[in-house]
Amino acid sequence: MPDSYNRIAGQNAERLAALSDGVFAVAMTLLVLNLRAPAVEAIHSEADLWTATGALAPRLLMYMLSFMTLGIFWVGQQTQLNYLARSDRSLSWIHLVFLFAVSMMPFSTSLLAQFTAYRLPLLIYWANILLIGIVLYASWVCALGSGLVKEDLAPQVSAAIKRRILIAQALYALGALLCVVNTYWSIGFILLVELNYALAPRLPGRRR
Amino acid sequence: MPDSYNRIAGQNAERLAALSDGVFAVAMTLLVLNLRAPAVEAIHSEADLWTATGALAPRLLMYMLSFMTLGIFWVGQQTQLNYLARSDRSLSWIHLVFLFAVSMMPFSTSLLAQFTAYRLPLLIYWANILLIGIVLYASWVCALGSGLVKEDLAPQVSAAIKRRILIAQALYALGALLCVVNTYWSIGFILLVELNYALAPRLPGRRR
Amino acid sequence: MPDSYNRIAGQNAERLAALSDGVFAVAMTLLVLNLRAPAVEAIHSEADLWTATGALAPRLLMYMLSFMTLGIFWVGQQTQLNYLARSDRSLSWIHLVFLFAVSMMPFSTSLLAQFTAYRLPLLIYWANILLIGIVLYASWVCALGSGLVKEDLAPQVSAAIKRRILIAQALYALGALLCVVNTYWSIGFILLVELNYALAPRLPGRRR
Amino acid sequence: MPDSYNRIAGQNAERLAALSDGVFAVAMTLLVLNLRAPAVEAIHSEADLWTATGALAPRLLMYMLSFMTLGIFWVGQQTQLNYLARSDRSLSWIHLVFLFAVSMMPFSTSLLAQFTAYRLPLLIYWANILLIGIVLYASWVCALGSGLVKEDLAPQVSAAIKRRILIAQALYALGALLCVVNTYWSIGFILLVELNYALAPRLPGRRR
Repeated sequence: MPDSYNRIAGQNAERLAALSDGVFAVAMTLLVLNLRAPAVEAIHSEADLWTATGALAPRLLMYMLSFMTLGIFWVGQQTQLNYLARSDRSLSWIHLVFLFAVSMMPFSTSLLAQFTAYRLPLLIYWANILLIGIVLYASWVCALGSGLVKEDLAPQVSAAIKRRILIAQALYALGALLCVVNTYWSIGFILLVELNYALAPRLPGRRR
Repeated sequence: MPDSYNRIAGQNAERLAALSDGVFAVAMTLLVLNLRAPAVEAIHSEADLWTATGALAPRLLMYMLSFMTLGIFWVGQQTQLNYLARSDRSLSWIHLVFLFAVSMMPFSTSLLAQFTAYRLPLLIYWANILLIGIVLYASWVCALGSGLVKEDLAPQVSAAIKRRILIAQALYALGALLCVVNTYWSIGFILLVELNYALAPRLPGRRR
Repeated sequence: MPDSYNRIAGQNAERLAALSDGVFAVAMTLLVLNLRAPAVEAIHSEADLWTATGALAPRLLMYMLSFMTLGIFWVGQQTQLNYLARSDRSLSWIHLVFLFAVSMMPFSTSLLAQFTAYRLPLLIYWANILLIGIVLYASWVCALGSGLVKEDLAPQVSAAIKRRILIAQALYALGALLCVVNTYWSIGFILLVELNYALAPRLPGRRR
Repeated sequence: MPDSYNRIAGQNAERLAALSDGVFAVAMTLLVLNLRAPAVEAIHSEADLWTATGALAPRLLMYMLSFMTLGIFWVGQQTQLNYLARSDRSLSWIHLVFLFAVSMMPFSTSLLAQFTAYRLPLLIYWANILLIGIVLYASWVCALGSGLVKEDLAPQVSAAIKRRILIAQALYALGALLCVVNTYWSIGFILLVELNYALAPRLPGRRR
């Protein structure tokens, strides 16, 4: 009996994409709420304002880092959805878990921005990224297993999608591990990894 | 005279879907605002931070619960909209009431997260779910009654849509009733019900 | 020279609809931020919580009122956009002004919810509605004048769209005027007008 | 190896548009959070409320300015996306940087609204606009260079898109420069420039 509902529910891959774009857009924009203008009472000169605004630099950096993280996973999810012929209820739920993890990012980010020197926020941040990665991988396995992908999917595409997630997650894990040295090494390493993902395709000689 | 406007207004089911995806996306992501990083002044060591972050666990659980609730109703609404040939003004308004109830969820959730041991927040939370359910049921009845559904709709689909809402609401009501024991029983029961809805379709042997 | 840019910019009515759905979705959901759970420190019993939550009733009412206002104008804008063959840069800008006025609603609402007995918030609320109405009317006049509407538009549709806005705004103005008695009369009247717009099409005998 | 992923990722220009509309919608609506109702305790009469609300006028002006800025860049980005046949991963990332800069606007705006007389907030505001402009220009150059634009693109369209950005940015830079006199001159000048962009197409005799 539940089966009949399962067969009819959650089949619309376009609405899944629309919800995802919405969640990503809100999460990306909520990150800015971590940046707050200094209190009026504390500012008596242009110099005060330079100091107070300069003090926001670490938060700005975290903001960029998280925006980039979300951008990477948005591109990753989009690539998968582009190859779907349709969705089903199981896949919709996997993507809802994915979006749950995405919507956690503003919290993980604010925690890390506020307590950058501590290890726990970094581990939570990494756990968040790990969760997003696992679910994204699972969604592709599910789409393949349930025959939801387009007929003309080349096998190397599927391999590239999986490999991309695995390599990225290995690098993120390595970055998280660096917190045994200290958390700034971790953040710096993750930043470099992500810059590589974001910039790489535009390096000359690599395109085409 | 109002009739002529009614005939031309609110006919676009796609924009209804787009507005719905937007409201769900914002509501889902606003839930995270219930999770706040601890105050900097209160944290002097890694141990303090573990304690303070651990204290957020109940709020995190409520966040997951509400995200799942919203996910269930998003899938439910989407299933209905997929079977619509078009919309009309009445149906648009029923869905606007539905979205109103959806947009209430961040408030109901924050109330319950803050006063988990009290009965009133649980009853409000349940009333919110009940309202969403009633309006979702009404929207399907209206769509059928006004001939807005696609021509090739199988009768068992319509029955499955209705039955699904009724059974779920019966279980939610039972969960709410458990608050005569205490509210943790209620929350636990509702959580189990929702996990069942979210996970069930992926259990082996049930698919197909 | 600016002409050539004007001819190529802002022609996509679908993206205008998508931006509008986004702004409406965010504005509708931000309204809930006016409802805040009572402070934990103030609550010592279930009775305290009933009192504190009950005290939110006026804010809940304002929330419903504004959600309904936004719903009415969302339906109104959607009706217009459905009849557009395409957009142009002028029309895009009129709709951006429309969306600006829409995005003001959470502010107007919070002002009125906080100072319900004062006249200024009511006048601001009404001015907000008036601005939305004027711009919506202007957008239709512009769409007609620039030949952006679909070819097969029946003249009575155009008349119905204009008449609807004029009558609604006349009623809103009347409601605002009632604040010479007191603001509760105004709010009550506006609420009744909007309930009429939202419910009317579903009254039996009026449909078809 | 990264190449194969780059060839399959980020090809969907429609999802890029959807994400963009979401980010713009949220950023535009978050601007309203800069406007806050006065504290209840400070208001004892209608006159108090007029004073306190009147004091919000500069913030309201900044809100309008930023909404207009976002509107201008939304129209600008939309114009480009309309001429795309498809996207690729590089272009997606350029637009993600564009959206990052867009999502910064609520912060830049709140800083300028709070410290209008200081130069730093004005320079940050201008740097934000400059960044948006540079990235928008870069995205067009990239789209042309990678052959992503539609085949039938007229050369004068491409020239108009580039010229529009360059002229606007020159005017913004001039406005920012005016802060050597004082910041109000800068804000006034930028406001006039933007009003010209928003209103110009509707002046009689210019259309067609």
